[in-house]
Amino acid sequence: MSEAAAPRIGVLRSGARDSIADVAGVRVGHCTLDQGEVQTGVTAILPHGDDLFMQKVPAGVAVINGFGKSIGLIQVQELGVLESPIILTNTFAVGTAATALTKHALRQQSEIGRSLPTLNPLVFECNDGYLNDLQAFAVAEQHVFQAIEACGADFAQGSVGAGRGMSAFGLKGGIGSASRRVSPAPGLTCTVGALVLANYGRPDALTIAGHRLGPALAQTVQRADPGPEKGSIIMVLATDAALDARQLGRVAKRAGAGLARTGSEYGHGSGDIALAFSTAHRVPQRGSMMGGVPLLQDGALDPLFQAAAECCEQAIVNALWQASAVTGRLGRERLSLREVVEQRLGRDFPLGNQ
Amino acid sequence: MSEAAAPRIGVLRSGARDSIADVAGVRVGHCTLDQGEVQTGVTAILPHGDDLFMQKVPAGVAVINGFGKSIGLIQVQELGVLESPIILTNTFAVGTAATALTKHALRQQSEIGRSLPTLNPLVFECNDGYLNDLQAFAVAEQHVFQAIEACGADFAQGSVGAGRGMSAFGLKGGIGSASRRVSPAPGLTCTVGALVLANYGRPDALTIAGHRLGPALAQTVQRADPGPEKGSIIMVLATDAALDARQLGRVAKRAGAGLARTGSEYGHGSGDIALAFSTAHRVPQRGSMMGGVPLLQDGALDPLFQAAAECCEQAIVNALWQASAVTGRLGRERLSLREVVEQRLGRDFPLGNQ
Amino acid sequence: MSEAAAPRIGVLRSGARDSIADVAGVRVGHCTLDQGEVQTGVTAILPHGDDLFMQKVPAGVAVINGFGKSIGLIQVQELGVLESPIILTNTFAVGTAATALTKHALRQQSEIGRSLPTLNPLVFECNDGYLNDLQAFAVAEQHVFQAIEACGADFAQGSVGAGRGMSAFGLKGGIGSASRRVSPAPGLTCTVGALVLANYGRPDALTIAGHRLGPALAQTVQRADPGPEKGSIIMVLATDAALDARQLGRVAKRAGAGLARTGSEYGHGSGDIALAFSTAHRVPQRGSMMGGVPLLQDGALDPLFQAAAECCEQAIVNALWQASAVTGRLGRERLSLREVVEQRLGRDFPLGNQ
Amino acid sequence: MSEAAAPRIGVLRSGARDSIADVAGVRVGHCTLDQGEVQTGVTAILPHGDDLFMQKVPAGVAVINGFGKSIGLIQVQELGVLESPIILTNTFAVGTAATALTKHALRQQSEIGRSLPTLNPLVFECNDGYLNDLQAFAVAEQHVFQAIEACGADFAQGSVGAGRGMSAFGLKGGIGSASRRVSPAPGLTCTVGALVLANYGRPDALTIAGHRLGPALAQTVQRADPGPEKGSIIMVLATDAALDARQLGRVAKRAGAGLARTGSEYGHGSGDIALAFSTAHRVPQRGSMMGGVPLLQDGALDPLFQAAAECCEQAIVNALWQASAVTGRLGRERLSLREVVEQRLGRDFPLGNQ
Repeated sequence: MSEAAAPRIGVLRSGARDSIADVAGVRVGHCTLDQGEVQTGVTAILPHGDDLFMQKVPAGVAVINGFGKSIGLIQVQELGVLESPIILTNTFAVGTAATALTKHALRQQSEIGRSLPTLNPLVFECNDGYLNDLQAFAVAEQHVFQAIEACGADFAQGSVGAGRGMSAFGLKGGIGSASRRVSPAPGLTCTVGALVLANYGRPDALTIAGHRLGPALAQTVQRADPGPEKGSIIMVLATDAALDARQLGRVAKRAGAGLARTGSEYGHGSGDIALAFSTAHRVPQRGSMMGGVPLLQDGALDPLFQAAAECCEQAIVNALWQASAVTGRLGRERLSLREVVEQRLGRDFPLGNQ
Repeated sequence: MSEAAAPRIGVLRSGARDSIADVAGVRVGHCTLDQGEVQTGVTAILPHGDDLFMQKVPAGVAVINGFGKSIGLIQVQELGVLESPIILTNTFAVGTAATALTKHALRQQSEIGRSLPTLNPLVFECNDGYLNDLQAFAVAEQHVFQAIEACGADFAQGSVGAGRGMSAFGLKGGIGSASRRVSPAPGLTCTVGALVLANYGRPDALTIAGHRLGPALAQTVQRADPGPEKGSIIMVLATDAALDARQLGRVAKRAGAGLARTGSEYGHGSGDIALAFSTAHRVPQRGSMMGGVPLLQDGALDPLFQAAAECCEQAIVNALWQASAVTGRLGRERLSLREVVEQRLGRDFPLGNQ
Repeated sequence: MSEAAAPRIGVLRSGARDSIADVAGVRVGHCTLDQGEVQTGVTAILPHGDDLFMQKVPAGVAVINGFGKSIGLIQVQELGVLESPIILTNTFAVGTAATALTKHALRQQSEIGRSLPTLNPLVFECNDGYLNDLQAFAVAEQHVFQAIEACGADFAQGSVGAGRGMSAFGLKGGIGSASRRVSPAPGLTCTVGALVLANYGRPDALTIAGHRLGPALAQTVQRADPGPEKGSIIMVLATDAALDARQLGRVAKRAGAGLARTGSEYGHGSGDIALAFSTAHRVPQRGSMMGGVPLLQDGALDPLFQAAAECCEQAIVNALWQASAVTGRLGRERLSLREVVEQRLGRDFPLGNQ
Repeated sequence: MSEAAAPRIGVLRSGARDSIADVAGVRVGHCTLDQGEVQTGVTAILPHGDDLFMQKVPAGVAVINGFGKSIGLIQVQELGVLESPIILTNTFAVGTAATALTKHALRQQSEIGRSLPTLNPLVFECNDGYLNDLQAFAVAEQHVFQAIEACGADFAQGSVGAGRGMSAFGLKGGIGSASRRVSPAPGLTCTVGALVLANYGRPDALTIAGHRLGPALAQTVQRADPGPEKGSIIMVLATDAALDARQLGRVAKRAGAGLARTGSEYGHGSGDIALAFSTAHRVPQRGSMMGGVPLLQDGALDPLFQAAAECCEQAIVNALWQASAVTGRLGRERLSLREVVEQRLGRDFPLGNQ
């Protein structure tokens, strides 16, 4: 397969990896299930390497379109903290993944649900039922543990983990990541990283770096799926900028700007949800006062907003670009965007602002 | 045990059963687990007897305090419909119950997650870890099915189903229900019913029909629990009034008024969540137009608001009054309010406006 | 008139004044218009004595029932700061008061709307049209300036300022205030103060300290008003506890618990809105970083929640108790609760937990 | 000036006027103040020709970024109806415009604030202080009346009405409008129209139909304004599709997708607010039941979402394209995009998908 880099989005510079792991401490791991009709998996994101329940991180949510079955958002909205690994998986596996997160936390804190409160597991989902046999309920608790254990700063993108069975714009979707670096205040450089699970999009609407590729694709790629859009996209943002939960909710909302630029209008049946967290400080489970943390003022957020939009758009493009073709349930196939462009449209096909 | 009726709340009249099943078609069922350290269970609420996925009902949500791990609310907030039975259970069982609801729906509609979209399972929880060994993960999918199958218009209250291990105000809490009938428009009589899962409250704050019983109770009842409040209350409202999702959200918010009158200030660690649904019309899964349904105007909602507040307060009192004492994990015991009043405070103790 | 103290609410102790001014630095001022058919006015609340636009205070909002014409809440919800005095007035005067606030800020910062951004004026309203001729548009910009200039730590309650023409429970309503002191963390004592503009309530529902007075009142007090409820209540909470905007939103929400206990179910036509601000730290207009402020953890908020509910309920009772009878438009009269109780119901009439 | 048409956005077809007035019954009027340092005005939108207070229309809101001083949104969010003309004006004129709307309604219904409830005036604003002397407070009540009286189906765009003093992307902004026609259900064609007040955008970010023009513009156009972005954009959507308030809120949210495609990330200081209303049915002030209206199902909304995004983006482009250069306060000038493109960049400069 070609080594061509993915089309480049926007004007800001990336971190060293151009991934969410450019935010120091953030790690990602996958467990991929690739067995005939079962094409699915689990992806885990760890904000830091310590006990998340005892050392929570501030977080904010933007429900861009709430057609989704995620668990954990209500409490994040109320308390503004993340206290479990973030799990991405298929729609039917949310319950299993939530239980697994509780059991995982109990390994570290055996008093959860006894002298300690219960855990708020955070699980996001997309519907991979086009390629994956959802009704096989193939994801088990062990797969969640494996994804968490596999977490590292270097991780695969495309048709892996929760992205294994996902589709986007009639092509193969999946996991993508990117990062951007900005200076919100004099002498201060911050990183914003995104990881997306892309499973949305009408084929004719696909737009990359402002180029509407959809019509060309629609002529080239024969589509097998006659059904209505049943997509979804999950967008997780990490930053080392010192922000509180309210501000992180504002950052999360800008994921929707990046998403729109790829050709989405937040379709009715697409659960489009963004979450942003900060690694700059922690909220301890115990104690009654939080040590004072110097926070960025809201007036300094614009560079972070731009970075959030840009790296979400880039992460989506990366998800499409990195995704290899997958054949799954009923012999259905989703093609790789990169292969379609290189083999059918030609290398001169205009893509991005490279 | 005494046959004394529960203290009476408010001024409106009740339906025939004084329960949520006074809203025609609504049924409730329990599966109770009572085995030593395991004191927990599942309660199911069915808005009607048909296939809920294909014939959804309009619903609205009020997150009064979002310290909770419920699943399904994000989509109800977006789309304004309920498409699964409502399940109440303990905190660690939410994942299992969500999976069970999906499997239950598949029995009726085998194309869910294939040619049909996925189901949005709605599961609410409270933390019964004081009496119940949460870490036993005792609730299994079959218990959810059993609760659904047990649904009927006549159902037990108190220490049953999801209420088996719940505590409230340092006493035994659990399941309570009530109803009120009002006339929002000339010639029109509507019913509002409530079912609560009560697991909240500081002992000194207990207030029944305006009487603050807490101090007397605190002197009488020896408390074994030295820990912080970790409660929660779930309040489900049903009505046969013709309302849309926005209006039902307004009705749900009034549950908080009834709750406040029992002595709650919506404690930080208490997941206080209300949901209201209407049985007056249905939203079909298929089709692009909804037949016109004459709805009540917002200007006619005040009687329904009053009924919602009053029957939630009554349902809480009923939960306490119906709850029998339970001994559970570590030999801990929660006493019955009725027994405490009758045996320790005396039958002349002022309760309610009887 | 009698010197009897208002009925006492709850169990917490008050600050020295039992008013919002027990939160150090908070001041309140009125401008009262009492001229025949014109019975209205303006009340101003100042969080501190410095330039609010340059030194904002963190604030959170709870829209309990959004039937109201306030201005400024959208920006407070987004940015979590208060940057103008809080003005309370009648419904038709909101526009004039907003303009006056901008002009007032320009006196201190002539670059607002030029090199500085524009001001977000915060104006709340209730409809005093029963006693006051709203259509006279009697409130002018100078009355807003006068209310601000009149601000002090000692201020009148009852039928003054914005409370001049307000009605509650068929009686005279108006301005009330109260405070409570609590200890959310070891060695730390905080004050929560409330100021309400009470203009809501069905006469039969009036409940004071758990005693439902409504029915007795309804028999005693002849009501002149045959129309529907058109009420509203504004509840402003101040605290010296170190909280951020998200936490202050949680505190504001507990105003609804206090309100419910007086007999309100948040009527459809009643704009029931609460705002809470903290004086513990400031958010400067200029700069890109905020100095780190040690904040209370959410786990320590319960005492503040209890104080918020209790002092809102007390402030409402105080508004009714302090309100003197007023005769206004069309010769309509609203009686004083205190006079009704003392002269018609008898001093032995049960009120509060004195 | 050139007669060249504005660049064309998207793939859907427009209505006859390509304006919000393609939604039958919707009319727009301006009052423009063009006097030296005063470069401002008022724009009015009327959903229909009858008494809006007595015959409200359903409406929903999306607060994309709440840095704004609008009045009226809280009640629209609660009740889901629009009951006054929609007024757009400058930030300092909101109060005056709100008062004017109340007085305008009193001309039709003299019992407002007496036997009828008060009016909820809806006024949106942007900050035109770069070109306009905000501190002149030049907008008077009569200008609001004049804008309402000037309403018609044919109306000017660009530097008129509330758009007179607005800036966008360092160029002249202002009023723009567009429409799109779609078929959400078999045999049904609906129109979505947008009117925007565009006053936002970093010059380097301007993107038209996917082409990022900003860098070229930034080299060509000398910018006089060194200050931070203080923008805002108001986006009003009208449709003849039969939707309720919840659904209209979903439509309004898609305005943010169109906005993002022009180069916005919803800047911190930009009040980005969208409102959508339907003309398909009315909510009467009087009565307790609403006649049943057949509504579109949510599953049919995707074409309307696409239309909303596309016609907002088109309306923004039209605002820029129609805006003539204006010289205002301190001799500052904002150039016309069309003139810049035609005179400086050349007619061959790539714009849109024409």
